Amino acid sequence: MAKPYVKLGRNNAAVLLVDHQAGLSSLVRDIEPDKFRNNVLALAAMAKYFELPTILTTSFENGPNGPLMTELKESFPDAPYIARPGQINAWDNEEFVKAVKATGKKQLIIAGIVTEVCVAFPTLSALEEGDEVFVITDASGTFNEVTRHSAWDCMSSAGAQLMTWFGAACELHRDWRNDVEGLGTLFANHIPDYRNLINGYTTVQNSK
Amino acid sequence: MAKPYVKLGRNNAAVLLVDHQAGLSSLVRDIEPDKFRNNVLALAAMAKYFELPTILTTSFENGPNGPLMTELKESFPDAPYIARPGQINAWDNEEFVKAVKATGKKQLIIAGIVTEVCVAFPTLSALEEGDEVFVITDASGTFNEVTRHSAWDCMSSAGAQLMTWFGAACELHRDWRNDVEGLGTLFANHIPDYRNLINGYTTVQNSK
Amino acid sequence: MAKPYVKLGRNNAAVLLVDHQAGLSSLVRDIEPDKFRNNVLALAAMAKYFELPTILTTSFENGPNGPLMTELKESFPDAPYIARPGQINAWDNEEFVKAVKATGKKQLIIAGIVTEVCVAFPTLSALEEGDEVFVITDASGTFNEVTRHSAWDCMSSAGAQLMTWFGAACELHRDWRNDVEGLGTLFANHIPDYRNLINGYTTVQNSK
Amino acid sequence: MAKPYVKLGRNNAAVLLVDHQAGLSSLVRDIEPDKFRNNVLALAAMAKYFELPTILTTSFENGPNGPLMTELKESFPDAPYIARPGQINAWDNEEFVKAVKATGKKQLIIAGIVTEVCVAFPTLSALEEGDEVFVITDASGTFNEVTRHSAWDCMSSAGAQLMTWFGAACELHRDWRNDVEGLGTLFANHIPDYRNLINGYTTVQNSK
Amino acid sequence: MAKPYVKLGRNNAAVLLVDHQAGLSSLVRDIEPDKFRNNVLALAAMAKYFELPTILTTSFENGPNGPLMTELKESFPDAPYIARPGQINAWDNEEFVKAVKATGKKQLIIAGIVTEVCVAFPTLSALEEGDEVFVITDASGTFNEVTRHSAWDCMSSAGAQLMTWFGAACELHRDWRNDVEGLGTLFANHIPDYRNLINGYTTVQNSK
Amino acid sequence: MAKPYVKLGRNNAAVLLVDHQAGLSSLVRDIEPDKFRNNVLALAAMAKYFELPTILTTSFENGPNGPLMTELKESFPDAPYIARPGQINAWDNEEFVKAVKATGKKQLIIAGIVTEVCVAFPTLSALEEGDEVFVITDASGTFNEVTRHSAWDCMSSAGAQLMTWFGAACELHRDWRNDVEGLGTLFANHIPDYRNLINGYTTVQNSK
Amino acid sequence: MAKPYVKLGRNNAAVLLVDHQAGLSSLVRDIEPDKFRNNVLALAAMAKYFELPTILTTSFENGPNGPLMTELKESFPDAPYIARPGQINAWDNEEFVKAVKATGKKQLIIAGIVTEVCVAFPTLSALEEGDEVFVITDASGTFNEVTRHSAWDCMSSAGAQLMTWFGAACELHRDWRNDVEGLGTLFANHIPDYRNLINGYTTVQNSK
Amino acid sequence: MAKPYVKLGRNNAAVLLVDHQAGLSSLVRDIEPDKFRNNVLALAAMAKYFELPTILTTSFENGPNGPLMTELKESFPDAPYIARPGQINAWDNEEFVKAVKATGKKQLIIAGIVTEVCVAFPTLSALEEGDEVFVITDASGTFNEVTRHSAWDCMSSAGAQLMTWFGAACELHRDWRNDVEGLGTLFANHIPDYRNLINGYTTVQNSK
Repeated sequence: MAKPYVKLGRNNAAVLLVDHQAGLSSLVRDIEPDKFRNNVLALAAMAKYFELPTILTTSFENGPNGPLMTELKESFPDAPYIARPGQINAWDNEEFVKAVKATGKKQLIIAGIVTEVCVAFPTLSALEEGDEVFVITDASGTFNEVTRHSAWDCMSSAGAQLMTWFGAACELHRDWRNDVEGLGTLFANHIPDYRNLINGYTTVQNSK
Repeated sequence: MAKPYVKLGRNNAAVLLVDHQAGLSSLVRDIEPDKFRNNVLALAAMAKYFELPTILTTSFENGPNGPLMTELKESFPDAPYIARPGQINAWDNEEFVKAVKATGKKQLIIAGIVTEVCVAFPTLSALEEGDEVFVITDASGTFNEVTRHSAWDCMSSAGAQLMTWFGAACELHRDWRNDVEGLGTLFANHIPDYRNLINGYTTVQNSK
Repeated sequence: MAKPYVKLGRNNAAVLLVDHQAGLSSLVRDIEPDKFRNNVLALAAMAKYFELPTILTTSFENGPNGPLMTELKESFPDAPYIARPGQINAWDNEEFVKAVKATGKKQLIIAGIVTEVCVAFPTLSALEEGDEVFVITDASGTFNEVTRHSAWDCMSSAGAQLMTWFGAACELHRDWRNDVEGLGTLFANHIPDYRNLINGYTTVQNSK
Repeated sequence: MAKPYVKLGRNNAAVLLVDHQAGLSSLVRDIEPDKFRNNVLALAAMAKYFELPTILTTSFENGPNGPLMTELKESFPDAPYIARPGQINAWDNEEFVKAVKATGKKQLIIAGIVTEVCVAFPTLSALEEGDEVFVITDASGTFNEVTRHSAWDCMSSAGAQLMTWFGAACELHRDWRNDVEGLGTLFANHIPDYRNLINGYTTVQNSK
Repeated sequence: MAKPYVKLGRNNAAVLLVDHQAGLSSLVRDIEPDKFRNNVLALAAMAKYFELPTILTTSFENGPNGPLMTELKESFPDAPYIARPGQINAWDNEEFVKAVKATGKKQLIIAGIVTEVCVAFPTLSALEEGDEVFVITDASGTFNEVTRHSAWDCMSSAGAQLMTWFGAACELHRDWRNDVEGLGTLFANHIPDYRNLINGYTTVQNSK
Repeated sequence: MAKPYVKLGRNNAAVLLVDHQAGLSSLVRDIEPDKFRNNVLALAAMAKYFELPTILTTSFENGPNGPLMTELKESFPDAPYIARPGQINAWDNEEFVKAVKATGKKQLIIAGIVTEVCVAFPTLSALEEGDEVFVITDASGTFNEVTRHSAWDCMSSAGAQLMTWFGAACELHRDWRNDVEGLGTLFANHIPDYRNLINGYTTVQNSK
Repeated sequence: MAKPYVKLGRNNAAVLLVDHQAGLSSLVRDIEPDKFRNNVLALAAMAKYFELPTILTTSFENGPNGPLMTELKESFPDAPYIARPGQINAWDNEEFVKAVKATGKKQLIIAGIVTEVCVAFPTLSALEEGDEVFVITDASGTFNEVTRHSAWDCMSSAGAQLMTWFGAACELHRDWRNDVEGLGTLFANHIPDYRNLINGYTTVQNSK
Repeated sequence: MAKPYVKLGRNNAAVLLVDHQAGLSSLVRDIEPDKFRNNVLALAAMAKYFELPTILTTSFENGPNGPLMTELKESFPDAPYIARPGQINAWDNEEFVKAVKATGKKQLIIAGIVTEVCVAFPTLSALEEGDEVFVITDASGTFNEVTRHSAWDCMSSAGAQLMTWFGAACELHRDWRNDVEGLGTLFANHIPDYRNLINGYTTVQNSK
């Protein structure tokens, strides 16, 4: 009866970035701004590093919700970009679902703003269709811990895996020997403590 | 085995506001007073906006528990109002259950004070009868985080969906195009950050 | 698949107070001392008020764990009192299990120190035997929030209901009309905010 | 050597609202949005209730900092309104200082966004000129507790009084008998717990 | 320039309990209700134990602020009791000041609800008259930590000593040998951890 | 459908310490350094005390992740020690799995750094193979509470038991009479409050 | 007797970055790693933007304390760089003091790791010599809030100003009109919420 | 008017450890037990390392307060040890004051349990006599943050320096070159993060 262990695989996964918009970011208060921004950029960098098909979508981007975070747009110039005209659940937008299906992947890595809506609704919809969903909890933001808890409970009960960008990267990479420098750089760029470890180590090595 | 995705629908849902009384409010200490009051009023405004049948009930309102929050009474002048003579679980009151059945809805949106009693008991009773229950966690208050956790665990394990008023509103609305201004006003009135986004946006638009 | 709603009934329930000892109390740091002491005494008062069969047990009471909280001993002069010679899980003590069976009750309300051992082990053992277990989370204490979470997850996954003393009292009482003054006194004695409500109310009534 | 007790007097005080703008509000993360908005509106309502001369000022309101909170503009249609073209310290703006001087008051009640800049700088400047400054700490917001502490330490060391809008209102009113209903309304509108007290009380009175 | 060490002396001190009323208690949210109630009762018990002249006062006790905490009234049946008709600062009430002066004490121990008004204002007034003021911080409550900090900063800067009821009791007692049992009982009744220490100790002693 | 109660048995269990390395320790920020170090050493001492087969493994120990905590290496000089050349999931390393199988135990007690990777992945792998897994939550560390929650949810949903080192020790010991002094020493060395209890007790005993 | 208002001036100030080293960074646990790193880089960027003379110093950089944060070294290739051979208080190092004196500035902006040693000691030494010291609290890190509070109390009592990098930047800039784009870029690069404001604003402008 | 910078000197300082007793330790709840124990032992190790004259004192050690922490007694076998018969303020005990005077030191480093009594009272007494007092805040414990704040405010206002054991050790050592290994060992033994740095560093060095 327990949830089975579904391993994320770099050939099976796609990344969905849902509504990481400038205006909506001001609603995120369950994770500190510096950390949240860093987590979102780390997830994006991970997607690029593993060359996972990535889909961007926004809600009402010409209104108060504001434009997509500039860096995301720049990181994925060729990715499908669906500016939804009104659907709150991205999965209610045909173009978005078509883009997801076009990736041919059944493992969906999802993050967005706000967790209990823009992340939870497409997560539940995708699970309903039999996809495996991995919610990146630390790249998804919401109003406070009460709303976050409700969203996590809802998605986990429905069968989603709650992960972090770091956990997902480790699953996808499997073995450091596949590329030590690449993974190390990804971590160093987004985990200050890890950067310190590498800097300290490198300096000592160089002094030999 | 996972919980299925049950979409809240505006034609299928009713709202039950249980024991949001002046005296009982002083027991609520897991959510700050300003925020809690705001969340309750937001839920009420959502119910009105989507024209959901709404039922009010109180416990011992002539005693120390005190009268219903004034604004709720004023917002729903024609709603069934059941001042329970003694039953702690509202579902033990025949008149209340009759009012719920009279709505003809099987999706019940519930909030109240205190979470582990006035919300949890009718939630468990309704689930037992096969209704779909959506607990609005942020419009339900209790003594502290320990009591809240126990209540959430209990209701979620029994099959209830833990939601927030914002998440419920988004599910019910489905698509911004159904009424941009209406939903925007609901959010602006109850989410200060969203109001700021709209004000900022509107000012710039007007200056064009 | 969801957990069914099992209503606590005053004719079906017994209370097990496990290792609320003077020395062990100093280990409790997930709930503030004033509040924890109050919660334990409230649970004891509830047991007496509803005349539930109650069993007291201690571990190593002549050693560093220290004697049972004085008030508990005094409140239940005739209750079975099992000073366990060594078993950590009270359920491993035959005399204790015999006392539980002798109550003839299948609904066991449990609390103790520390949550992940003295509460969790007999809870799991009782569930295994088919009893219905209601853990009073706020009258059970442990080292910190990490150890508490592990204990709650463990007991809830095994089928226990997580409750609070207040929730249990409300379930047992069902209807205020059964005895307004009795329940009101129980609450006033252990919930300062409720006492304030009653005092304020009474004063106004008397001034009429 | 101790700071003397300077009583705020309704004939001696003016209110300066500095940079409570829509965009800047998204920077405030040391006080929850619901509570912060409420505190700012409470301060504004207090200023109006006591008919204190009030001055509004903004910084870069046509840029990303955004327009003044709509309600403030509407509450003080006739108040001096200084949209500063660039000065960060409002006191560096001649027009602003002139408006302050024109009130003829030496007791300045200040609040704004963000605390360590828009509040602290004019506070220090005004103290330097010999004014008595009362910083309304709960209607002033900033990035986090570290920045807040620095600002408070700085202003208090320089001689400012740290107050709250509630404390200031009480000092200004002195005696409930000056106007029970007026002060009661101010409190009920901005302190949910106080509103509950009044509602409960009134209901009981009416039932006599 | 440093504040001198003024030792509290049992022959020099009086206790002022300001506005510990049932209704106002619901405003206190910077200290948990169980702990706050306990601290206030501990301060009262301390006053009685050391036979310090004690003065009770309330604000608007027939209105929403509600009656004095019942236990305080009962503990000091013969103490001066000033139900202020309207003055917010108790020191503005002649009868209150007269009662203070009548004690002939220059060391004033003050606590009340809310800290930044009912405690701070008479504290500042008394300091101005040359009294030595000892604020019992843990028997004084307010809305939140921001309002508390402002009150503490204000009173400390003006020359008041910030103390706790435990610290004050220790200063007044000076030497355990003056009465071991009396002080031990005071602590055991209001500090659960201390009660546990005493119970454990006594049990072992008795078993010798 | 509930998780069954699987009792940890000293003849059935092995301990896996995964990546408790000097460099990785600086990433742990969900548990305070003093407490975390203490918990890890307590788990190691428990493993030795119960003579459980123990396996040590590290990831990249010659790089920035740094060497194993010195004390662990010294405590288990003869334990299998697998310095993994690159596999992130220890279970992907054949030598590690072989060492686990060689213990002949089906109850695996796991802890490590970081929780959502080095603990979660082998936990999920072992569960998949039918082992019973007991995650020692307080001897496992990660970046923050969000990442911890995701890891706990993931492991618990897959069937793992979340325990603490103290809970595990109690389960393994079953009865104090098996060795009072041994267990008492283990607790005293790693629980300051328990040490205090024993010291106080012993001193009194000796004074008899 | 109050501290006078000393305005930071861009022609009068120098910046001292003390011991922001890779190894020491792992000791910082009072500010989250993402935020702390960001604050340090923001302070460095501010120093460069205002062309303030900047001095770098390290302690034991060839030992466990590790090398200076790479970005700092790169940002200030021509700045005096004093790798102290042993002195804990940088002010005890003649070369460092000489470098400070060589700037000819009397306003010293200081930050470092850890706050109560590497920041506090040179702060106290500089104050003793009559310099004006501005401690950048949010770019200084230490073990926890207790150690931070002690350091702040110590430095503030001795006459230092507690500031933040944002506050310092605003004081130095004085007027947005001096360079809107430059200051805006500094803020956007280091304050995610501010970047969002600018992005939102720019997008709307461009769409006109 | 600012507090002057008084440098702790190893020839001028004595250490006073006041009431670090087994029973009293259970009252300490403002610092986690693992960390508090570690801090006290670190302070003791520091005193020994710098060979500072050290004085031990206890209050009621044969009663519920319990014996001195075993390790302290063992660390200072030849130190003056004053078991006070009743005086709460150690300074009221002639023998204690005589022992302090006998050290010939005017810089007193003080820590103890509880902060607002056993630390604050002798601190204030010593300051009154003209000694320089350095309170080790992190080796002093009390009930909660409210009582701690009151104690810190009181001692700092009276002229004491608030320090940490780490800060004091750094001040006393002045220069790493005086003994790198000795200070490094002191830090490694009591700061887990520092131990990790040293272990990592040493391993790399050894691998050269």
